[in-house]
Amino acid sequence: MAQPAGRTILASTIAKQYVNEITSQVKALNFKPKLVGFLANDDSAAEMYANWSAKTCESMGFDYELRRRAKNDLESALIQANNDDSVNGIMVYFPIFGDKQDQYLQQLISTEKDVEGLNFLYYHNLYHNIRFLDPPTNEQKSILPCTPLAMVKILEYLGVYNKHLHYGNRLYGKKVLVVNRSEIVGRPLAALLANDGATVYSLDINNMQQFTRGDDLSMQRHKVIDLDQSEYTLEKVAPQCDVIITGVPSESYKFPTELVSNGAVVINFASAKNFNDDVKQKAGLYVPSIGKVTIAMLLRNLLRLINNKKIRTEKAKGETGATDSST
Amino acid sequence: MAQPAGRTILASTIAKQYVNEITSQVKALNFKPKLVGFLANDDSAAEMYANWSAKTCESMGFDYELRRRAKNDLESALIQANNDDSVNGIMVYFPIFGDKQDQYLQQLISTEKDVEGLNFLYYHNLYHNIRFLDPPTNEQKSILPCTPLAMVKILEYLGVYNKHLHYGNRLYGKKVLVVNRSEIVGRPLAALLANDGATVYSLDINNMQQFTRGDDLSMQRHKVIDLDQSEYTLEKVAPQCDVIITGVPSESYKFPTELVSNGAVVINFASAKNFNDDVKQKAGLYVPSIGKVTIAMLLRNLLRLINNKKIRTEKAKGETGATDSST
Repeated sequence: MAQPAGRTILASTIAKQYVNEITSQVKALNFKPKLVGFLANDDSAAEMYANWSAKTCESMGFDYELRRRAKNDLESALIQANNDDSVNGIMVYFPIFGDKQDQYLQQLISTEKDVEGLNFLYYHNLYHNIRFLDPPTNEQKSILPCTPLAMVKILEYLGVYNKHLHYGNRLYGKKVLVVNRSEIVGRPLAALLANDGATVYSLDINNMQQFTRGDDLSMQRHKVIDLDQSEYTLEKVAPQCDVIITGVPSESYKFPTELVSNGAVVINFASAKNFNDDVKQKAGLYVPSIGKVTIAMLLRNLLRLINNKKIRTEKAKGETGATDSST
Repeated sequence: MAQPAGRTILASTIAKQYVNEITSQVKALNFKPKLVGFLANDDSAAEMYANWSAKTCESMGFDYELRRRAKNDLESALIQANNDDSVNGIMVYFPIFGDKQDQYLQQLISTEKDVEGLNFLYYHNLYHNIRFLDPPTNEQKSILPCTPLAMVKILEYLGVYNKHLHYGNRLYGKKVLVVNRSEIVGRPLAALLANDGATVYSLDINNMQQFTRGDDLSMQRHKVIDLDQSEYTLEKVAPQCDVIITGVPSESYKFPTELVSNGAVVINFASAKNFNDDVKQKAGLYVPSIGKVTIAMLLRNLLRLINNKKIRTEKAKGETGATDSST
């Protein structure tokens, strides 16, 4: 095969800048931030991910502790960690029960320690394009779920976000296809990119939807439209897209290379390989996996949570001080 | 009207970096480079342009001299300037005769002093994607015509060139419409952008052509295809384009705003205003004129010509030296 016109960009290359930033920010702290990971299943993939996240954390100056618990002990263990001042961040290696109870456990993690940004508060803010926790002061930034946030940083790195456009509109004019509409990644990702100005086509096994702030971005947040399935087929939509993002958790699924337009940006966030290698002959920029950026975003979220807490503490002190001096 | 989602970017903003670079490079020389402009018509626009280029040159540290000649004296005046070592660059304010004789005069300017890059040698190299004058050493860079070069620099500034792609392929995946196919700007511009990886649709009053290096950029230089006029109408092609560039020298011509897709990059290089103001409601980035970038490129070419001459001189010395020592 001919030398591809495009390039494959590895997640490690994209993550590098963030790894450096985070490492030096951790050094500048007067303590070692502690992340606790909870493992309560026998999933070997979760075990591997836990080991890998432990190594990454430690290499960047964080203190990482893996706590293994029985499924039925996880709830009380989470509550204990929520209340433990020495714990800065909490993550759980899902699935635990593999049903709705997992959502309950997810919401149980304190918003102050939710490094993965999975709490309803954070998703709500993402969907509503609310970027701060404390309007109108706007000092404490809302947390974004790691994987959608990683995707934003990847698209920024690749130059898909245009820095000459106003902040918040930097995907204006870009058409993005997202193949996956899970509640955890695909749907929030589509919303996030649409909130930044893109026209997003969101595909799952049921239908295709469009997420957009309107042709002229006159809406403050995105709206969702169910598209006519006869007119908006994958065959018609995909070749129009500047960016194709997949996250199909299946080794047998492969996105049809012939639907990728020449020079398109192609990103896979599934742990499975959603593209055949011949996609390199068509993609402009191809990012085959994103894990290293995602973990960097998780640790960036941890620093943000620490910073938000610092702001709240200083504010509380300030208010007490103000009361004292006025009495 | 609502606040546009996009932004208008002025040529002065884009030129700034180049103005600074050029100014400091001129300071670093041990002489003041001299540009001679020839005016041989009564065109008030040419007169204004001459005055403006004089001011720009002087503000950046160049020595500018305007020479007014009768039309019939221009030929000998150009030959004299070609042979005058104190003259580093030559430009002519066309039209002179307004016919083929102008092309003769254009080709008469020495390639060593042709700051506008109008010589056949430079156009030939542009069309053939040849970037150096002295293969295989590749030390002396070929000169690009000012306006096409300005467009490349503008598209680089705006982030349309993607720096993550290999040099030479950085417009891969981009669709560009160029409305103008003059020999002086439109056709070389289409070729230049196609050589850098874009799919270019080139429109003039006769037809629409496509300039491309092939879907996978497997060709070393672009090919040109005449498109089927019933299938490739402006109405169908323009809304598909990431970039719309116009250069129609008529005050009455206006590009139809409804054919600009939301978020597209829109650039006018004509001195006439080819877009109505409502284009701001649709364009992502809108550059209403490019003159200040073009003049910066003219002076950048002048420095390049000086550098090329220096390389040739040093080489000649080296060769003489080598001969001396071997005898």
